Amino acid sequence: MLEANLDDQTGEGLGYVMQRLLDAGAYDVFFTPIQMKKNRPATQLTVLADPAAQEVMTTLILSETSTIGIRYQTWQRTVMKRHFKAAQTPYGPVQIKVATYGKISKMTPEYADCAQLAQRLHIPFKTVYQAAMSAATQLDEED
Amino acid sequence: MLEANLDDQTGEGLGYVMQRLLDAGAYDVFFTPIQMKKNRPATQLTVLADPAAQEVMTTLILSETSTIGIRYQTWQRTVMKRHFKAAQTPYGPVQIKVATYGKISKMTPEYADCAQLAQRLHIPFKTVYQAAMSAATQLDEED
Amino acid sequence: MLEANLDDQTGEGLGYVMQRLLDAGAYDVFFTPIQMKKNRPATQLTVLADPAAQEVMTTLILSETSTIGIRYQTWQRTVMKRHFKAAQTPYGPVQIKVATYGKISKMTPEYADCAQLAQRLHIPFKTVYQAAMSAATQLDEED
Amino acid sequence: MLEANLDDQTGEGLGYVMQRLLDAGAYDVFFTPIQMKKNRPATQLTVLADPAAQEVMTTLILSETSTIGIRYQTWQRTVMKRHFKAAQTPYGPVQIKVATYGKISKMTPEYADCAQLAQRLHIPFKTVYQAAMSAATQLDEED
Amino acid sequence: MLEANLDDQTGEGLGYVMQRLLDAGAYDVFFTPIQMKKNRPATQLTVLADPAAQEVMTTLILSETSTIGIRYQTWQRTVMKRHFKAAQTPYGPVQIKVATYGKISKMTPEYADCAQLAQRLHIPFKTVYQAAMSAATQLDEED
Amino acid sequence: MLEANLDDQTGEGLGYVMQRLLDAGAYDVFFTPIQMKKNRPATQLTVLADPAAQEVMTTLILSETSTIGIRYQTWQRTVMKRHFKAAQTPYGPVQIKVATYGKISKMTPEYADCAQLAQRLHIPFKTVYQAAMSAATQLDEED
Repeated sequence: MLEANLDDQTGEGLGYVMQRLLDAGAYDVFFTPIQMKKNRPATQLTVLADPAAQEVMTTLILSETSTIGIRYQTWQRTVMKRHFKAAQTPYGPVQIKVATYGKISKMTPEYADCAQLAQRLHIPFKTVYQAAMSAATQLDEED
Repeated sequence: MLEANLDDQTGEGLGYVMQRLLDAGAYDVFFTPIQMKKNRPATQLTVLADPAAQEVMTTLILSETSTIGIRYQTWQRTVMKRHFKAAQTPYGPVQIKVATYGKISKMTPEYADCAQLAQRLHIPFKTVYQAAMSAATQLDEED
Repeated sequence: MLEANLDDQTGEGLGYVMQRLLDAGAYDVFFTPIQMKKNRPATQLTVLADPAAQEVMTTLILSETSTIGIRYQTWQRTVMKRHFKAAQTPYGPVQIKVATYGKISKMTPEYADCAQLAQRLHIPFKTVYQAAMSAATQLDEED
Repeated sequence: MLEANLDDQTGEGLGYVMQRLLDAGAYDVFFTPIQMKKNRPATQLTVLADPAAQEVMTTLILSETSTIGIRYQTWQRTVMKRHFKAAQTPYGPVQIKVATYGKISKMTPEYADCAQLAQRLHIPFKTVYQAAMSAATQLDEED
Repeated sequence: MLEANLDDQTGEGLGYVMQRLLDAGAYDVFFTPIQMKKNRPATQLTVLADPAAQEVMTTLILSETSTIGIRYQTWQRTVMKRHFKAAQTPYGPVQIKVATYGKISKMTPEYADCAQLAQRLHIPFKTVYQAAMSAATQLDEED
Repeated sequence: MLEANLDDQTGEGLGYVMQRLLDAGAYDVFFTPIQMKKNRPATQLTVLADPAAQEVMTTLILSETSTIGIRYQTWQRTVMKRHFKAAQTPYGPVQIKVATYGKISKMTPEYADCAQLAQRLHIPFKTVYQAAMSAATQLDEED
């Protein structure tokens, strides 16, 4: 995990660097609003990445942002196993992400599939999402 | 310390999981507002718990939230020693938490006691709290 | 200005609705992290739009989000006059937005132009942005 | 809508006042993190209430918090019409809130019902919630 | 009340403008963290000022920040009446702000007085603050 | 890195402790808005300091704030090398901080110099800052 505090960077520039870090292979990138000295509203940039990518991420952050320092810490991770199933909804097919860990199993409709169907058919996102969840639940019971 | 980022969970569900984690023995549970990719406002869930409780907390978070990954890190802690004293206020008795560390000693009126007296007597919470602080200070000088 | 508080909506769905509202002609859409009852982290959705677009925006928010209520208030606005100038940088041309109000005049390089040049030439965004600002300042003095 | 900025109030006291305002009939109460002068992290308290309740809410806020000033503004509201339906899930009955506005209709399982079943049967909240949504969708199609 | 959203301004510059606005007579100035389009973390600037000061504040914000638009809305205010009393603490004198509204009366030790005594005598801020509160309460009972 | 969560501390007191920690030699001090149990808005205090200063910082936090616990974790840091250059602007001299790391080099005008010139000459902060950046860029090319 890499972190840097930014109080002399514009939000515009931060939106740009988030995309660059994701393109460079970061697992995840997020911003936390913080408050620094001298009444400065600021943003904490956090990058979750493979330890092997530390140098690449460091160079990218130091090049693209105004920070002059970055801090690092290794965290352990538990990540659920994932596979995909196709579910049929009245609006079209949606991929379902199935995540498992021991006895725990949960299903999530793929955001991009739901968003695409919703926009094409001019129906609410939630209608597609809910239909996908129902289809996934039935699929699960048939297994 | 366990952390997870949640961008596909409702706030309603998060209020529920906070209570479940506290009931399961977490020292503390808190939320930090964060901003994730694709313009998603999200919430970082942080759980402070005994290392021995890691598996219990992990199972609870993976079961009850939409996250598929959790990260862990061991932090050291300094915690002040605590004991309680009873203080008499004009409104009734209030327990005072006394916390000490080396030469540092500080007193805090118990929130629940103050809140209960304030509601029963229809007076402001701050009036009871302040009376408890004054009573505690006097008690301290008599020691 | 339209506002709604959302505590039973996922961040994923909110990223989707932000884009839909901008596509439908909102001047601006933004999220503010808030904290609602029952320990629920939540998000306030704010939409700045023309009063004539109120019904369209209302329908979109009620269809696409979980909120059942929206609040409205008319605000006055002062907006600076804008025109564009082309600036030549060592890296290529960048449009400069010139905004004026009475004696105040300020210039901002277009984000999209800077981002595109930075990515094509593999140089930091800030290098392009700064070069555009310098070119714009010189242009200004020649006027 | 009533708003007050609080930089000399504890979070503990704010949790108390939120409950008091809701008990006194506020439609909604929420907190927004803000940053005030002299490097002070602070909290904005917002109360949505009937204009007729303004004096009651004002007195409560001035009594229970440290603020010495409150600001007011009337906003218009669009609120969807609501009624309830009972849905049968494999885990027990759950009330469904049905909200309508023109052609828009949406259903939400009652949080309290889902939470209660989940805790009694030792199953995840999301399992109950999802079952209630599926049952509600079927009910809807039978109408 | 004036508001502007800033996503192309540094936190450093915002700390500067807060001070300038207060020096120019704003009642209050505060920042709220917000999230704008294109993954930009941003800051909402709010200025509470007399309607007569609107033009001065507008000119200052447009000159000193990157925003090109400002929105305005008049809010009503209830402000408690204030006067000052001197309280004697074991550490020295502290001014007490007494605020009243109908039957409500509350006292707050002046921050600057407490901070100054705490730093001169090398004792915690809270010790001075609490002593001032106790002295104020006694003064009140003698009235 | 030291962290503490504060839900029974006023913002006023937190502004005070930030200054005390910086005076005592902390590299950086910042606040993050968080949400704790029982509907309490709270603030996370983070202090970046040399490991050798841990005891000093701990004593200061426990004395000056309401927290009874502090957590610690050692992070690694990459910090760019820094030196200063004097740049001449039409408004007066401004120190430029030059930070380098491998091939990366970036320049930032000193905030205090820009703010002082802007206030003395009654011109916008951004005008001075931008002039300093242009002067710095030219200086750089002459090297």
